[in-house]
Amino acid sequence: MGASEIVRRGLMLVLSSPSGAGKTTIARRLLDEDVQLVNSVSTTTRPIRPGEVDGKDYYFVRADEFSRLLRNGDLLEHATVFGHQYGTPRKPVAAALAEGRDVLFDIDWQGTQQLKQTARDDLVAVFVLPPSTEELARRLHTRAQDSADVVASRMAKAADEMSHWAEYDYIIVNRDIEESVASVRAILAAERLKRERQIGLADFVSKLRGAR
Amino acid sequence: MGASEIVRRGLMLVLSSPSGAGKTTIARRLLDEDVQLVNSVSTTTRPIRPGEVDGKDYYFVRADEFSRLLRNGDLLEHATVFGHQYGTPRKPVAAALAEGRDVLFDIDWQGTQQLKQTARDDLVAVFVLPPSTEELARRLHTRAQDSADVVASRMAKAADEMSHWAEYDYIIVNRDIEESVASVRAILAAERLKRERQIGLADFVSKLRGAR
Repeated sequence: MGASEIVRRGLMLVLSSPSGAGKTTIARRLLDEDVQLVNSVSTTTRPIRPGEVDGKDYYFVRADEFSRLLRNGDLLEHATVFGHQYGTPRKPVAAALAEGRDVLFDIDWQGTQQLKQTARDDLVAVFVLPPSTEELARRLHTRAQDSADVVASRMAKAADEMSHWAEYDYIIVNRDIEESVASVRAILAAERLKRERQIGLADFVSKLRGAR
Repeated sequence: MGASEIVRRGLMLVLSSPSGAGKTTIARRLLDEDVQLVNSVSTTTRPIRPGEVDGKDYYFVRADEFSRLLRNGDLLEHATVFGHQYGTPRKPVAAALAEGRDVLFDIDWQGTQQLKQTARDDLVAVFVLPPSTEELARRLHTRAQDSADVVASRMAKAADEMSHWAEYDYIIVNRDIEESVASVRAILAAERLKRERQIGLADFVSKLRGAR
């Protein structure tokens, strides 16, 4: 008798951060390296932009279709940003978790709060902070022609997002991208070893104890 | 302004398992590789054995000294095994944690229960299981001359210890020693990133948010 009957329950890994903290790079690296981790693709009513792929970057839908999804309870969380609606479809997440895969969510603090309400036990919430104000400003100052006003408004938005750091389970200060990727990898590895996430342990231990 | 003012609060890593599951090998590897991790040396009234070093393997004390430690509240947990007393001195643990170091405890389920009562927030409890009954029997059958009775009694003791698996935070099935060492390493890395274990985050985020 081996331990092969222990199966893992998937988890929902939320990565949030102000833009400019490096979250997107970390997320891409994790998805590239970890075959057990799948990306949650959001649904949006925002028009598709050049270079974007429907079903990969977003599921692009019309407003009436979005309303239908919302009405049917098909969205795990949703928000309106600059007049466009965004939401997380429930079915692909449920399917991945049932297969023992983990799902990565690149969402803000409001989406995280909504996920917490529907799926607290499956949720692992990680907040990524920039290493310093100077570094954050540098990353938000993406183009030379950016006006001081544009940068200031981005900094204000970042400050607002950062005010929610204490609602997260883990905090990573992104001093170095390799170190930060390794940190999220360790969080994933550890969370997968949590007792509640290993299904079949009770039977496995019973057999270990009783087989002689 | 950098993130250097964030300091880490140390944690207490408990490794428990039936003997024969590989815990001691894992513990030794972790202590060798991780300079932030220190071993908790127990105090005992049991006589010193050839090859043992006082202060390294155990602090060897007389029964009256042990009673004094117990009376003064100087022991975090204690137990009597085969007529000898064993306990964990409080002071070295407190000193290591205050320095931001982590402390490893190689104790059984009873010691773990006692630590939980005094230090729940600092405790990270890991249970190591053998991969199969056959493998456990093989490891407990250490010498060719061991009688069937001796092995059976060791298996019964292992079965008793394993009945407490569900009192632990993380469960590792030790199929491969390298994999298991990596697992405990990931647990340590992740637990160090928990929000509650990073002191100074609130001030750090305030500065990040307010500096402009």
